[in-house]
Amino acid sequence: MVRRISIRTRGQGLHDITEHVQATVAEAEVDDGLCTILVQHTSASLTIQENADPSARRDLEAWLSRLVPENDPIFTHTSEGTDDMPSHIKAALTATTLSIPVVDGRLGLGTWQGIYLWEHRRRGSKRNCLVHVS
Amino acid sequence: MVRRISIRTRGQGLHDITEHVQATVAEAEVDDGLCTILVQHTSASLTIQENADPSARRDLEAWLSRLVPENDPIFTHTSEGTDDMPSHIKAALTATTLSIPVVDGRLGLGTWQGIYLWEHRRRGSKRNCLVHVS
Amino acid sequence: MVRRISIRTRGQGLHDITEHVQATVAEAEVDDGLCTILVQHTSASLTIQENADPSARRDLEAWLSRLVPENDPIFTHTSEGTDDMPSHIKAALTATTLSIPVVDGRLGLGTWQGIYLWEHRRRGSKRNCLVHVS
Repeated sequence: MVRRISIRTRGQGLHDITEHVQATVAEAEVDDGLCTILVQHTSASLTIQENADPSARRDLEAWLSRLVPENDPIFTHTSEGTDDMPSHIKAALTATTLSIPVVDGRLGLGTWQGIYLWEHRRRGSKRNCLVHVS
Repeated sequence: MVRRISIRTRGQGLHDITEHVQATVAEAEVDDGLCTILVQHTSASLTIQENADPSARRDLEAWLSRLVPENDPIFTHTSEGTDDMPSHIKAALTATTLSIPVVDGRLGLGTWQGIYLWEHRRRGSKRNCLVHVS
Repeated sequence: MVRRISIRTRGQGLHDITEHVQATVAEAEVDDGLCTILVQHTSASLTIQENADPSARRDLEAWLSRLVPENDPIFTHTSEGTDDMPSHIKAALTATTLSIPVVDGRLGLGTWQGIYLWEHRRRGSKRNCLVHVS
């Protein structure tokens, strides 16, 4: 079963999509199986990170944005905005696809793990993911 | 179904393998399913990136090669060439496996997404990937 | 089939789990298929790396720890120790899930590839992974 889920992001940073993905797993009525997520964009990405303290997510965003700043003179691909090329690099350094075992009808995440869509453009937008469950 | 595909790289940078992977999906005659790719090397990797403007791929290569330069005094693993240890690091920072949902017999990629083999050695070589479709 | 495997790490660095994963594949009695691994923690990660020369793994650890040092003034999430936030960043930059095709009942890894759990906390601990084989 493959479903598309759409997330409206509100700017750079990590957006929790765990419940969206879990709802797709529930709909598939699979006991033990595999859930795979693909983000269909090259300026956003996926990560599994700590779901307890929001400061960890803010630090992730701050650290990565400092590593990959805008207006780097090495960039030649600049026609789509100063935050475009950093977005592609951040996407390459994190994940575009994730695969998570399903156990007893639930995502087999650890206690402190959540699934996040990581928006890399300053201005958020509608982001689509495909979710496959088998 | 598992197939091996081989790609001849011509040096550092991103090599488009989308059509090779799509051909394997077509051969599997799967409508809705999952396609997984593994690159069988530790000095090359995989990424899903923008397929429109080649300058984005050139900037990715330039940025990552500046982040992980050759001849770093921290390296002790130097017997296989000055570009060997940077290649392993670049592979660790990007992806070795990717899993992409299949929809209506086609890879469920976004409009601007292509699948790339990222060669990290200065001298390219024959690179093998395994492609699983189910 | 989904199994949990537990690994006792002894500190920062790469711990070979290839045989643990291969044992799960053997137990599943699958000829051609897919093996997926998830590490259930956000301060450890997964990587497929060279299994021949241990110096390559030591250099990976040294390089990444220099890129993401402790006590960075950008960090606000500091309550769980100075090595906690660097661990989350290192996990985001490497992999939390891996999917490997199975061929003739064996992981389809390249000759020099091993699967590693990468411990990012200075003090190791018991780390759980889920392994799905189908």
